[in-house]
Amino acid sequence: MSPPIDDVSASARIAGPGEDIGPEELALAARNHGLPLEALRYDVTPPGLHYVLTHYDIPAADASTWQITVRGDVRRPLTVTMDELRSMPSATVRVTMECAGNGRARLTPRPVSQPWLVEAVGTAEWTGVPLRALLADAAPGPGAVEAIFTGADHGVERGVEQDYARSLPLSVATGRDSDVLVAYAMNGLPLPPQHGHPVRLVVPGWYGMAHVKWLRDITVTDTPFTGFQQAEAYRLRQDPGEAGEPVTRIAPRSLLVPPGFPDFMSRTRVVRPGTVRLEGRAWSGRAPVTAVEVSTDHCRTWETADLAPGDGAPWAWRRWEHTWTAAPGHHVLSTRARDAEGNVQPVDPPWNRGGFANNAVQRVDVLCLRPAD
Amino acid sequence: MSPPIDDVSASARIAGPGEDIGPEELALAARNHGLPLEALRYDVTPPGLHYVLTHYDIPAADASTWQITVRGDVRRPLTVTMDELRSMPSATVRVTMECAGNGRARLTPRPVSQPWLVEAVGTAEWTGVPLRALLADAAPGPGAVEAIFTGADHGVERGVEQDYARSLPLSVATGRDSDVLVAYAMNGLPLPPQHGHPVRLVVPGWYGMAHVKWLRDITVTDTPFTGFQQAEAYRLRQDPGEAGEPVTRIAPRSLLVPPGFPDFMSRTRVVRPGTVRLEGRAWSGRAPVTAVEVSTDHCRTWETADLAPGDGAPWAWRRWEHTWTAAPGHHVLSTRARDAEGNVQPVDPPWNRGGFANNAVQRVDVLCLRPAD
Repeated sequence: MSPPIDDVSASARIAGPGEDIGPEELALAARNHGLPLEALRYDVTPPGLHYVLTHYDIPAADASTWQITVRGDVRRPLTVTMDELRSMPSATVRVTMECAGNGRARLTPRPVSQPWLVEAVGTAEWTGVPLRALLADAAPGPGAVEAIFTGADHGVERGVEQDYARSLPLSVATGRDSDVLVAYAMNGLPLPPQHGHPVRLVVPGWYGMAHVKWLRDITVTDTPFTGFQQAEAYRLRQDPGEAGEPVTRIAPRSLLVPPGFPDFMSRTRVVRPGTVRLEGRAWSGRAPVTAVEVSTDHCRTWETADLAPGDGAPWAWRRWEHTWTAAPGHHVLSTRARDAEGNVQPVDPPWNRGGFANNAVQRVDVLCLRPAD
Repeated sequence: MSPPIDDVSASARIAGPGEDIGPEELALAARNHGLPLEALRYDVTPPGLHYVLTHYDIPAADASTWQITVRGDVRRPLTVTMDELRSMPSATVRVTMECAGNGRARLTPRPVSQPWLVEAVGTAEWTGVPLRALLADAAPGPGAVEAIFTGADHGVERGVEQDYARSLPLSVATGRDSDVLVAYAMNGLPLPPQHGHPVRLVVPGWYGMAHVKWLRDITVTDTPFTGFQQAEAYRLRQDPGEAGEPVTRIAPRSLLVPPGFPDFMSRTRVVRPGTVRLEGRAWSGRAPVTAVEVSTDHCRTWETADLAPGDGAPWAWRRWEHTWTAAPGHHVLSTRARDAEGNVQPVDPPWNRGGFANNAVQRVDVLCLRPAD
């Protein structure tokens, strides 16, 4: 007999042909939220506009008694209070964060989970203690290979009761080029509850699943972590039986601020004929963005947009601009980013069973009115 | 020939039998968001957890050049800058705000619009200038009956291009018992963009559609306002041809913090046998909440919860608690509020074509494990 928890915690599944969003996906969409695309105008996203994805519940956390333990394969196990953490040398890093499931609801067939379209992104200034400093204090053993990060959010997923936990290879956790932070402030203020209050991991360049919120424990291990969120979830699989490649760094993406004004229900945009200034943001967690292109004709032809300088923030999105001369009629606007490793956004969505890393180009429907309308 | 804007801006419609959430409703659900129900634990909702519903786009607003005009049937038309507004005597009021469409997606058949379940609510401390003071400065004429409030958000809805605008009867706008504010701060900080930066109306006790965001103009009139959001939208209608009653004050509602921990996908709750402390919030915009009841057996029997004092905040939700002894098996938890006018939440949803004011009781599915699980 299967345990009763399986009654309420089903296996992953793929939506059937023509199956629209059901009550469970709607319940997730009502709790979690994306960036309203007009908020791409802000260099740094105000907290309530930054995307949020919470696997279980936002924990009730008390910063005054919160502690992080650092243990496992280390010579000096640590217990760190928030006051102690805030007294250590800190760094502030501007980071564009994106959910690994962004784009999932645009896949056919659709993996059933949080149904993101394209908006699960945001950029913040995170302040905290470099993880490498905390790990150096604890002194990992010579055979240590990974650090496992455990949060306070507790739930069940596909039958597995768990505290949310993810690992990083020590080379990433302590690397000089990755700026991993144990972060306690967002845009200069204490973390809001939904962003991990009082402390979270920030892993610049990686999809959101790596940035463990409500961080309670760091355990160093001499074997790779095989927990649910590492070995079961967040793998790129075509068939259920595959081990699959792990989801890691953010694939390049560009999004445009939808021009003109929207229809409330269809979200189709309306513009008037003439010059329309298009703007947006582009990012990649794999390498610097080197070019952004814009199409105003259903991805048939592309023009190069003006890309703003990186501004010394290598982990943050970059602004771009382009001028479009709109003529009356229906148009579909798209934009695509390319990075220094040669990664470029595809026109057709890359499919996998988890619906991860779908960075297919955005499509924005626009009606340009006639001059007299 | 119909204007081309009708191609992208359709009439209101009701979902067909068995029709799940489609791409347009999903696009709204991805932008707008509710209160994650565990956040009912906070007396005052942190801004990023407070529900947000934006009809069109969040405008790009510059507080340093923002002005509110007060005009129409007044003896002294005014133009007020943000500095001037902040120098006037202010008030701070704690207000529970709820979207008029809360509960819409739980209706059968479902009106197609923003698909809220039960979570479109939040409570904030709003600071601003009492509207009655601003109107007194402008001195409405003897025949004035309403004030129309226009925001900066521009869009099209059911074929009508518009700036979002709503009116209030002058008796409400200037009434001593309603504390209507022209608000520039939320929880002690400048309004976030999505909550109306730099200034909005706050109408305690009324559904959210009355709290006009990004407020630019107040026009006093000697005839009732017949704009789209007043005469077309936000009416309680059974048939499309009816004038319908206007949506005004918030019907009573109680929500509980879902106990235990959730399954990621189904959001079903899991608890262990024994004593489970239930807590939640209850509010009504019509009269003080006088009682909250809890059912743990599919609304068959009800027990009275402990209701906390009102705390001198008549427009804010009140906390309640109840102790439940959970036994292994499946349970459905519900709660209902009653107010001093005798309004009580119904078990079956009240239906209307707009899907407004559905305050039917919440239902929370809970699995209580066996002691050995």
